[in-house]
Amino acid sequence: MGLSRRDLMKKAGIAAVGTGFAGLTLSMANRAIGAGDPQQIKIPELPWPYKKLDPVAVAEAAYEGYYKGACGYGVFESIIAPLQKAIGFPFTMMPLALFTVGQGGVADVASVCGCLNGAAHAIFLVTGGLDKKPRETSYAIIQDVFLWYEQTALPDYRPSKPKFEIIKTVSASNLCHVSVSKWCKASKFKSFSKERSERCAWLTAATAKHTAEILNTYADGAFKIAYPLSAAAEACRSCHDKGSKLENSRAVTDCGGCHFTPSMKQDHSKL
Amino acid sequence: MGLSRRDLMKKAGIAAVGTGFAGLTLSMANRAIGAGDPQQIKIPELPWPYKKLDPVAVAEAAYEGYYKGACGYGVFESIIAPLQKAIGFPFTMMPLALFTVGQGGVADVASVCGCLNGAAHAIFLVTGGLDKKPRETSYAIIQDVFLWYEQTALPDYRPSKPKFEIIKTVSASNLCHVSVSKWCKASKFKSFSKERSERCAWLTAATAKHTAEILNTYADGAFKIAYPLSAAAEACRSCHDKGSKLENSRAVTDCGGCHFTPSMKQDHSKL
Repeated sequence: MGLSRRDLMKKAGIAAVGTGFAGLTLSMANRAIGAGDPQQIKIPELPWPYKKLDPVAVAEAAYEGYYKGACGYGVFESIIAPLQKAIGFPFTMMPLALFTVGQGGVADVASVCGCLNGAAHAIFLVTGGLDKKPRETSYAIIQDVFLWYEQTALPDYRPSKPKFEIIKTVSASNLCHVSVSKWCKASKFKSFSKERSERCAWLTAATAKHTAEILNTYADGAFKIAYPLSAAAEACRSCHDKGSKLENSRAVTDCGGCHFTPSMKQDHSKL
Repeated sequence: MGLSRRDLMKKAGIAAVGTGFAGLTLSMANRAIGAGDPQQIKIPELPWPYKKLDPVAVAEAAYEGYYKGACGYGVFESIIAPLQKAIGFPFTMMPLALFTVGQGGVADVASVCGCLNGAAHAIFLVTGGLDKKPRETSYAIIQDVFLWYEQTALPDYRPSKPKFEIIKTVSASNLCHVSVSKWCKASKFKSFSKERSERCAWLTAATAKHTAEILNTYADGAFKIAYPLSAAAEACRSCHDKGSKLENSRAVTDCGGCHFTPSMKQDHSKL
């Protein structure tokens, strides 16, 4: 059996209005008939648009997110999920579960802290791009978050419904391994304990809150570097960085996070 | 003026076939009418489908990609762009430029090597997910790539049109900082030289090739751990890992990448 145009439109859930097809815009037709063909959709280039977020709401969501998908997911999801709600496409195209991989310093390897990896990806999504200018701008923001993380006594945000109380430590490193070990030493809790998990949930909330705050500041055109490299690290970099005498390394971090032993200092005293 | 059902279908660029609307699938209608409303499109959950790739083509693309968007982008793009071509949606929804942020150990901080960060995200996209089973499966693959990276003399792939010849080094670490410094020491090239960039371009190609190979193996149902933790690291972990006497750290890496000084060894000899 055939269907009339009226039946076709009725089936598509819309009323025939005005001058018929000419009054039925492409967008309306597609919405009415269905979701459209995703193969035809193009994803916009970076940066995607940002809308200022409530940092405390982000922190609370990140704390919850930690217990769903760990640290990297917790930070990324708490920033991007509200943008999915507020803006929709293209944020709705981002599979948030991907950033679970930041867990425990990438797939539990204990390399870069997952909070920072999640934050870096979220920041780059809304400020970065392949071109030099957005890339460098975004890196300046990300580096400021990394140095905030390693120089600040964390976690500096207490979730509204915590499972345990958590003490603060300064990591002096962006690495999961160092951050966790220092907190374990100070708190006397084990590295695979429920208390250590809770500490990382608080840290996820703290990093997400700081990330939302810095993105809000950037959205206001008021971003400035707040956490420069420490004087001690600058002293190291003066011999090891770009354009220096040795120029034999790359690093934007406190060096004492790894170069921590007396013999290392002694070697240097002979120079 | 109104339009007949025949006109409507003609306008949509398709012939009326069979039993009319019943023969016009939603997908056909949407494809015919246009791209659809992206706000209505839902992104599938992870893992996304994988199709086996040519590892050498991936390596060559990764080398080129390095000079466009650095290490993280180079690896991620060389794996995912061919899947965009072969499969289309949902891979076409992934903004490849996002993974530029892995550059130089995340935004030039020199933390986790960007090749590994890009590889981890690509692997998780096609093997991982929030649920425990895909998450653990994906982490096993990613950890194998991380340990391959730190235990292997790299770069072990020579691009077809290199700018310079590049020597191999073993990093014993997953960190950009360590990997670059060791290569600089062995090669005598500076850390911000064109030769070091070229080395990282080769490393991007090598890591992408290895990642494609391991994903192909996984697609064949034949993945097995090929790079277990070193005996030396296992000895360390026996006192510091989950369930051990101290249980005071997390790490799936060679420890000597950072704990490298004689005094550290001496402290341990007293235990």
